[in-house]
Amino acid sequence: MNQEIKYSKGLDGVIAAESKISIVDGIAGKLYYYGYNIADLVEKSHFEEVSYLLLYGHIPSPSQLEAYIDKMLKYRRIHRSTLRILKSLPKETHPMKALQTAFSGLGGVWDNKKNSHPAEILLAYISQVPLIVAAYYRIMNGLAVVEPEIDLSFAANFLYMIHGEKPTKENEEIFDKILVMHAEHGFCASTFTARVVASTLAPVSCALSAAVGALYGPLHGGANEGVLKMLEEIGSPDKVETWLAQAMAEKRKIDGMGHRIYKVKDPRAILIQGLLRAIKKNEDTQNKVAILEKLEENFTNLVEKQGKKIYPNVDFYSGTLLHIMNIDPILFTTIFAIARTVGWSAHIAEQWNDNRIFRPITLDTGNRDITYIPLSERH
Amino acid sequence: MNQEIKYSKGLDGVIAAESKISIVDGIAGKLYYYGYNIADLVEKSHFEEVSYLLLYGHIPSPSQLEAYIDKMLKYRRIHRSTLRILKSLPKETHPMKALQTAFSGLGGVWDNKKNSHPAEILLAYISQVPLIVAAYYRIMNGLAVVEPEIDLSFAANFLYMIHGEKPTKENEEIFDKILVMHAEHGFCASTFTARVVASTLAPVSCALSAAVGALYGPLHGGANEGVLKMLEEIGSPDKVETWLAQAMAEKRKIDGMGHRIYKVKDPRAILIQGLLRAIKKNEDTQNKVAILEKLEENFTNLVEKQGKKIYPNVDFYSGTLLHIMNIDPILFTTIFAIARTVGWSAHIAEQWNDNRIFRPITLDTGNRDITYIPLSERH
Repeated sequence: MNQEIKYSKGLDGVIAAESKISIVDGIAGKLYYYGYNIADLVEKSHFEEVSYLLLYGHIPSPSQLEAYIDKMLKYRRIHRSTLRILKSLPKETHPMKALQTAFSGLGGVWDNKKNSHPAEILLAYISQVPLIVAAYYRIMNGLAVVEPEIDLSFAANFLYMIHGEKPTKENEEIFDKILVMHAEHGFCASTFTARVVASTLAPVSCALSAAVGALYGPLHGGANEGVLKMLEEIGSPDKVETWLAQAMAEKRKIDGMGHRIYKVKDPRAILIQGLLRAIKKNEDTQNKVAILEKLEENFTNLVEKQGKKIYPNVDFYSGTLLHIMNIDPILFTTIFAIARTVGWSAHIAEQWNDNRIFRPITLDTGNRDITYIPLSERH
Repeated sequence: MNQEIKYSKGLDGVIAAESKISIVDGIAGKLYYYGYNIADLVEKSHFEEVSYLLLYGHIPSPSQLEAYIDKMLKYRRIHRSTLRILKSLPKETHPMKALQTAFSGLGGVWDNKKNSHPAEILLAYISQVPLIVAAYYRIMNGLAVVEPEIDLSFAANFLYMIHGEKPTKENEEIFDKILVMHAEHGFCASTFTARVVASTLAPVSCALSAAVGALYGPLHGGANEGVLKMLEEIGSPDKVETWLAQAMAEKRKIDGMGHRIYKVKDPRAILIQGLLRAIKKNEDTQNKVAILEKLEENFTNLVEKQGKKIYPNVDFYSGTLLHIMNIDPILFTTIFAIARTVGWSAHIAEQWNDNRIFRPITLDTGNRDITYIPLSERH
């Protein structure tokens, strides 16, 4: 009897909470952060301002923004305990695991500051993510950790800390836009994780660390790295058709295609494609962009003929863009995490604002009242 | 309009997945692990066997149990990287935060062993929890870490590692029963967190670490510590009535009372109360038990008169029992975590067995299409 009870696997389509933070309109292909269209924010705003918007729910006045950035900079230094933790990890540890670990460890530094306003603690963590990622990246590569630079923007400082040299203005701007685009996206698994953990009233470090763990899952983050591998496999635009025909015949999943919410092309994919077209490219990267655009066209046409609507998501073009900027693919998911820490933080604050602990139920399909047989009588 | 859409806050009563692992019958006050009544398991089984039951879904044969315990013992050693991480943490770090951090850090050791069977990796983590907790407890108290002892049971080894001396047979048995009782309990927030993270196909270390973070929340773990504080406040059985009258007048939450699922007395509370009655007590602890039993009687009578059914949950008596066994209250929630790592592990394996990523939706109450005003034009 139990078996016939209906429920939605993966909570697909189930409302888990109210939220004012963002609207992901999967039908119209629109994304809003507190009412602002993502295309506007990417064109006209920058990551610091967008993080203010997501934490406070409104665009700052000039003086509010200045005070906010000053506070962010106050937290732009690497804690000694963080460095010790990062250096304690086995060398084969993935940067996402290093981030989850270090985030959790920061709890010992900040979680006990009970008098601080939640937004201030969240801001501290937001400022820390790029430092943790960059420091660990240098450590895992046997390089000296680069100290953060107070005079650089959030975006430029991260690029500086991983590469050891200040980025070009063009790269800084593009990277900033990538961060803006990845800052928030409703109840993806990692954000939902952050809210479930926050709903127990566990400290920020617990919720953010948990969210990083969820984002590390290959079904969540990491598809843009897969797209790069696909590009290597295909090789050149004229081979797209044959490659795709075979991939479809083998029912392979095409990385970067499709999204549970978007039934049209992901608005962020459109924005990244625009950046990709505008950025300076050499022959190799021109070739890659040509492969991607042809793959998109052929793939969407093919599935449309089958009556399906599957379009590029944010990951389809982003890996190539990051690759052109000389960013190591092992860092791709951590960049997602750096940006999304803002969204996670906004959701933690929203959860606490009107909290009820998450405690769903299971559909029980197991047994009752099995007789326990002592060990000596078992065969 | 949106405001009128109904949803269940905290996913209360919402089915999030099928599960065969346990049945929490809140009406009859029964708890089953894979069909076995918790009262039977507490009386007749032991933690090692129960962890086998929860991981494999059936009671082991004698040879299966032997092989299983051998494997557990193989993982009973503290990793050097774990010790380094624990020593890296700021001294004010809570043991639950240390556990979340160290669990995550173990990912670098085990998550890449892709050829291992999931149950084997889960078993490794299950074996590690008590070692991490005990090692950190010694470190935070400035004591030498006690090396684990292969000849001891799971329960005895933990007590040995925190206290530095082997426990009495009575304490070993009681502690083992406490672990059995806490091993699994359906979709509490921490277990649900573990499943959400696992649903992204993130490695075990990500999911377990996230679950610890959720359990650290005061709305989830930690109520038994609150009960101890309440006992201090009350002082003696004859003061229960006055204290309770005032607490009720102030609408204070009584720690250890009530549960979202149980509408009767938690079966685990009944079992712990039994252990508490049987254990050797001095005058002080006899006094404490007397206060608790009187408080239970008076409280349940009072709320019954108000037409409400609120009864003791697992936390009501457990703190006092652990206290009698000379266990530091700061470790109470970690003991819950040591036991529940088994339940979390069972749920991770069950999630992977028939996976769909958790991605619920939000009820959007925010805005759309706000015009972005450039910074220079804002006031």
